[in-house]
Amino acid sequence: MGSLDAVARIIEKSNKILMTTHVNPDGDAVGSLLGLGLALVNSGKDVMMVTAAPIPAVYQYLPGSELLQLPSMLSTREFEAGVVLDCTDLSRIGGDLPELLNGAGSVVNIDHHISNTHFGDVNAVDPKAAATGEIVLDLLLLMGIPVTPDIATNLYTALITDTGSFRHQNTTARCHRTAAVLLEYGADHVLVHNCLYEQRTLSSLMLLKAGLETLSLSKDGRIAWMAISYEDILSSGCNMEDCEGIIDYPKSLRGVEVGILFKEVKPGEIKVSFRSKQYLDVNRLAASFGGGGHERAAGCTVKGNLADAVAMIVRTTEEHLRLAMNNGGVS
Amino acid sequence: MGSLDAVARIIEKSNKILMTTHVNPDGDAVGSLLGLGLALVNSGKDVMMVTAAPIPAVYQYLPGSELLQLPSMLSTREFEAGVVLDCTDLSRIGGDLPELLNGAGSVVNIDHHISNTHFGDVNAVDPKAAATGEIVLDLLLLMGIPVTPDIATNLYTALITDTGSFRHQNTTARCHRTAAVLLEYGADHVLVHNCLYEQRTLSSLMLLKAGLETLSLSKDGRIAWMAISYEDILSSGCNMEDCEGIIDYPKSLRGVEVGILFKEVKPGEIKVSFRSKQYLDVNRLAASFGGGGHERAAGCTVKGNLADAVAMIVRTTEEHLRLAMNNGGVS
Ligand SMILES: [Mn+2]
Ligand SMILES: [Mn+2]
Repeated sequence: MGSLDAVARIIEKSNKILMTTHVNPDGDAVGSLLGLGLALVNSGKDVMMVTAAPIPAVYQYLPGSELLQLPSMLSTREFEAGVVLDCTDLSRIGGDLPELLNGAGSVVNIDHHISNTHFGDVNAVDPKAAATGEIVLDLLLLMGIPVTPDIATNLYTALITDTGSFRHQNTTARCHRTAAVLLEYGADHVLVHNCLYEQRTLSSLMLLKAGLETLSLSKDGRIAWMAISYEDILSSGCNMEDCEGIIDYPKSLRGVEVGILFKEVKPGEIKVSFRSKQYLDVNRLAASFGGGGHERAAGCTVKGNLADAVAMIVRTTEEHLRLAMNNGGVS
Repeated sequence: MGSLDAVARIIEKSNKILMTTHVNPDGDAVGSLLGLGLALVNSGKDVMMVTAAPIPAVYQYLPGSELLQLPSMLSTREFEAGVVLDCTDLSRIGGDLPELLNGAGSVVNIDHHISNTHFGDVNAVDPKAAATGEIVLDLLLLMGIPVTPDIATNLYTALITDTGSFRHQNTTARCHRTAAVLLEYGADHVLVHNCLYEQRTLSSLMLLKAGLETLSLSKDGRIAWMAISYEDILSSGCNMEDCEGIIDYPKSLRGVEVGILFKEVKPGEIKVSFRSKQYLDVNRLAASFGGGGHERAAGCTVKGNLADAVAMIVRTTEEHLRLAMNNGGVS
């Protein structure tokens, strides 16, 4: 990939480098940032890795996370290059980081989102990559920077976050080859799985239990949903991070095409998540309520009381499903 | 591996071939059997793929599963070769299949269990393989038999079953390279994940809910357990397959080293499953109750009432944990 060569040249000739990623960073964002950041530190660069806000606690196990800075902590505001990872456009960076990048000599944009705006002076955007971490590994191999176990653990985290541990549809042969290489470089996959998947809180399991009590199915068995009230959330002592993963339960039922999770995040405000298995475009469904997302995972927010929201949205989902089936979406 | 050459030679010179695997077959057993079986059918061999009992319903999606026969259905009892997959010893094959194999010209033993007894005339036993399916892929490549998408889907199922979808500690770079090759050969990983992980029954989720209601933690937070009564199982309408996966919940809690699941499978008979994260040898723990397994996953059966069994086993687990910690097992 020619653009990776151009990225390598800019990084090689720059010393003071600002690195960042998008707000509300996920494992691909933090893992790619730290993976490339540690590699450049090891090559003797004066690197500052910055996020607009502290990263989620779940990623604090990542080697090098103690090097991350907030914008207010920076000892300089002048950089020869800025490197932005896993970020579709500059507006998703947050804080005053876009200004800082505008002042940098060159901006490098490394990402895998098809919607990337190519905002950089050099853009290594590869929508075929399942994770930005895959592109970072290619870059390190191209630049001949040794991949240490710490770097490998970061890039492995990036990869499994964006592929759902190799379960999502976007998982390719390339993902598995990348994983193989990263394990050979010493990625601690036992640590990563333990820190990502075995750190549940008691309150999150109590919230799951409360959710399971509300599990309902449409008459034809193709729609399943759970509705968590504001009271449930309050009494469980959960925060929003604790709700992650609950959406998978309704969809996991045999015969179900669409799973829906209703969460009353404030009295009268309901966050709705949709997941589909094979044929319903939930992006369009969510868009009809002012939301959006992808074909198989989307969401929206509606106002009103929980029971009304459930009734209305299940009804609309049934209509979308009927149309999709009439259009030959399913046997 | 020289033994694979020997396996290839026996298969090449044989026409009538009996193929089988262990009783209560898992995804590696069925996937390896069908993966190799379809390949030999495609090479023009007269292959009979046999299991002592019908395979679990969850594996009926596997391409070629309609070719599986029960011993009573066989049209002949004379074979030039017998091939046994994923099976430590002949006694685990079940039915009258061991006799049939004894009558076969040569017995080929393809497996990855370290405890394999090398019962074959030729033994391709590779304990470094995470799944028997990995060895089967090597064999097909060695023999130059084309890997069709159907074969790849079977071997991919074998691989993800025995590595817990690449999450277990036994996952190696080789596993990921095998997965990459299988995806390139057309393994339908979306189908596999859908059929393995998104076919829950409503009753299994109701049993999970009943289990979560009993979730308990030891004072120091290092032991978590759930206890499912015979009544819970009866009223949920679940069978034993529906209980699978429930053991993962207690262990998934932050700070927990040992997760325990108690299932009263009959009045007065309690199946106990143990899982540990990092340092407790639950094989030894289970052995102290007449059970066994591996270091990180083991089980036993005890008699008595559920509450007494819970109290007794939690107390013993606390003692094992205290000893493990005194021995420097943990920081
Ligand atoms: Mn990403
Ligand atoms: Mn196996």
